[in-house]
Amino acid sequence: MAGKDVAVSPLALPLPEVPPIEGVRLGVVAAGIRYVGRADLTMMEFASGTTVAGVFTRNRCPGAPVDWCRQALKGGRARALVVNAGNANVFTGKAGREATRATAAAAAGLVGCKPGEVFLCSTGVIGETLPHAKLTAALPGLHAGLVPEGWAEAARGIMTTDTFPKAAVRTATIGDATVTIAGIAKGSGMIAPDMATMLSFVATDAKIPAEALQALLAKGTARTFNCITVDSDTSTSDTVLVFATGQAKHPRVPKEGGAVLKDFARALEEVLHDLALMVARDGEGAQKLIEINVTGAVSAKSAHRIAMTIANSPLVKTAIAGEDANWGRIVMAVGKAGEPADRDLLSVAVGGTWMARDGGVIPGYDETPVVAHMKGREVEITVDMGLGRGKARVWTCDLTHGYIDINGSYRS
Amino acid sequence: MAGKDVAVSPLALPLPEVPPIEGVRLGVVAAGIRYVGRADLTMMEFASGTTVAGVFTRNRCPGAPVDWCRQALKGGRARALVVNAGNANVFTGKAGREATRATAAAAAGLVGCKPGEVFLCSTGVIGETLPHAKLTAALPGLHAGLVPEGWAEAARGIMTTDTFPKAAVRTATIGDATVTIAGIAKGSGMIAPDMATMLSFVATDAKIPAEALQALLAKGTARTFNCITVDSDTSTSDTVLVFATGQAKHPRVPKEGGAVLKDFARALEEVLHDLALMVARDGEGAQKLIEINVTGAVSAKSAHRIAMTIANSPLVKTAIAGEDANWGRIVMAVGKAGEPADRDLLSVAVGGTWMARDGGVIPGYDETPVVAHMKGREVEITVDMGLGRGKARVWTCDLTHGYIDINGSYRS
Repeated sequence: MAGKDVAVSPLALPLPEVPPIEGVRLGVVAAGIRYVGRADLTMMEFASGTTVAGVFTRNRCPGAPVDWCRQALKGGRARALVVNAGNANVFTGKAGREATRATAAAAAGLVGCKPGEVFLCSTGVIGETLPHAKLTAALPGLHAGLVPEGWAEAARGIMTTDTFPKAAVRTATIGDATVTIAGIAKGSGMIAPDMATMLSFVATDAKIPAEALQALLAKGTARTFNCITVDSDTSTSDTVLVFATGQAKHPRVPKEGGAVLKDFARALEEVLHDLALMVARDGEGAQKLIEINVTGAVSAKSAHRIAMTIANSPLVKTAIAGEDANWGRIVMAVGKAGEPADRDLLSVAVGGTWMARDGGVIPGYDETPVVAHMKGREVEITVDMGLGRGKARVWTCDLTHGYIDINGSYRS
Repeated sequence: MAGKDVAVSPLALPLPEVPPIEGVRLGVVAAGIRYVGRADLTMMEFASGTTVAGVFTRNRCPGAPVDWCRQALKGGRARALVVNAGNANVFTGKAGREATRATAAAAAGLVGCKPGEVFLCSTGVIGETLPHAKLTAALPGLHAGLVPEGWAEAARGIMTTDTFPKAAVRTATIGDATVTIAGIAKGSGMIAPDMATMLSFVATDAKIPAEALQALLAKGTARTFNCITVDSDTSTSDTVLVFATGQAKHPRVPKEGGAVLKDFARALEEVLHDLALMVARDGEGAQKLIEINVTGAVSAKSAHRIAMTIANSPLVKTAIAGEDANWGRIVMAVGKAGEPADRDLLSVAVGGTWMARDGGVIPGYDETPVVAHMKGREVEITVDMGLGRGKARVWTCDLTHGYIDINGSYRS
């Protein structure tokens, strides 16, 4: 995870220009938690009146910062975010809880807010005590240097095994006003978000009640972060937070949101989508991005389970790494999902070419476009179940020697 | 899968001496289905009166031979078994059903029985039509040469990606009589049996009613084949069949089995256990055999799910490949299982040394025995949930470059 010479993912995207979001100041500093010679502590300060929404891992052994954020989220207000990389503060018992309490208190003192308005995230090694004295010692200098332009540095500051920084920006209209949504994310391994991915932070200058923001985030996450997987391993620290600073001038948004947020919802989902796919693109060892579409399932939930079962199948993922359009393994994965399936109604396409239909291979189908598609960086699989109208789309990456290299010597 | 120069698993065990089982004659022949220069067609003939029990994959897209065996099993009687390697006859539509019908008819003609007393299994590539004319052409010569001593050849004849043949033998007493149980198995990849593993065939000279035999097999399978996983991918062809020829002289066994079968049940489970662990030992790319014990769960079912989630975690499996006793990843896997868990009651031991307890690492625990244990061929993990009395034990292997090598170029 730390400081290895891992090549940048061949699926990396360039970091977009992220403009300042009114009401957000941010920055990074090297607190020396684990990494040497790089920033590892990131802070954001939000204007008074900022609302917040969050979704978290469903892992039953969450980290202390996840517990802290869940509690803080009840207030619906945020003034600061503090994120450290290199130590996840997970499975650290009382010491972990003490670390979150002390860090939040220190940040609250600097910002002039309640500790419950400070959100905390930690990412890195599990099971080692977080040296929070290093965080609290570094916070005053970090806070003094916060600026509106620090998004690129923040995107880098939260990285662990990531090989490239991840950010996305959209604008949306609320009434006649234009608002901006900016987000960053980190994540590469232990990616099978069951509510969110490792860490993602989104901010907007829009003024959105916490209830409405939470509803939009939950809906957007279900179609983005909850639709990616790298290795089926759900992290103990997954967190997505959205902050709305309320600095933009636009018609008042009611608690329940509604039609006035239609364009904002579209833009927010696009930001979440971009960030989620960047995480899949940076999957440990990834050489190919894989999109899996399942149609014709008995329900959307069933389609999602089938798609994720295909996405998590080591045999499907290694076949794609080997550029083999092995639809037999796809059929196997469909069958093991435990969802309603009729072998004789199944159809499978790769790169838009139908290869199997009605319970067997399509005689004489043209292999040429399939072979060409498999050699590309982006592979698309479609499975039609032939049963109903349920559909789902998920993304993953292939399983390569790179994954074994990275994870077979993580702590050594 | 076919004819690669893959080194024999470092976890391989020697093939035991398998004595003849009265009422069973068997043999192999090279039918040229896929492999060159090796036997790929195996046949067993059973004495008149042989009963049979079977368990099969729960994959929703099973192969045509699985459909055939499920139907044949209703009769409870068996006179022949025909197994081919190299082609799984899965997702082959009408041609697949025709192949099973024709093969069973040919075997029945040779043995002098009904087609419904012939059991069929196929293993190998999915989605290619089985050239059953090659099978039926080879069957007369194969049948003419069946002998009681052919177990070692049969264990080799059913192999695909396996690197060593697998067999196990036990004796048991029923009343004052001694009976023998012999079994063979194949399996290496696509191993996450949800009812059975790839293929395993067990025969005994005991005289056991089909109902009693089925009950013993179901119980034994639940604690053996259903407790191993190589890669979480449930095959479309998993089949375990047990044949009881009834040639031994012993007290009559009632339909419902019962106390008279106590020692036989013990011996059968030991055979199934040995064969299942050989499959885990021959997991694709395996360098280490991993035993996972979960205790203190709310129920046995919950413990099993947690143990299988740990066993299927790529991050746990790669850590063990890297000889890293990364208990943080074990905690992550416990948490993602979706079963009741309390982080602060969890304890984790590796090789008998407790490393984590009460929600955190045990301060000053002795790393020396843990490091030594991780360097061995057999790794033991124990997780105590601290919640109840449910327990489970499962086995898997590590995830190494060998797995990627084997599966990244399977068909090319």
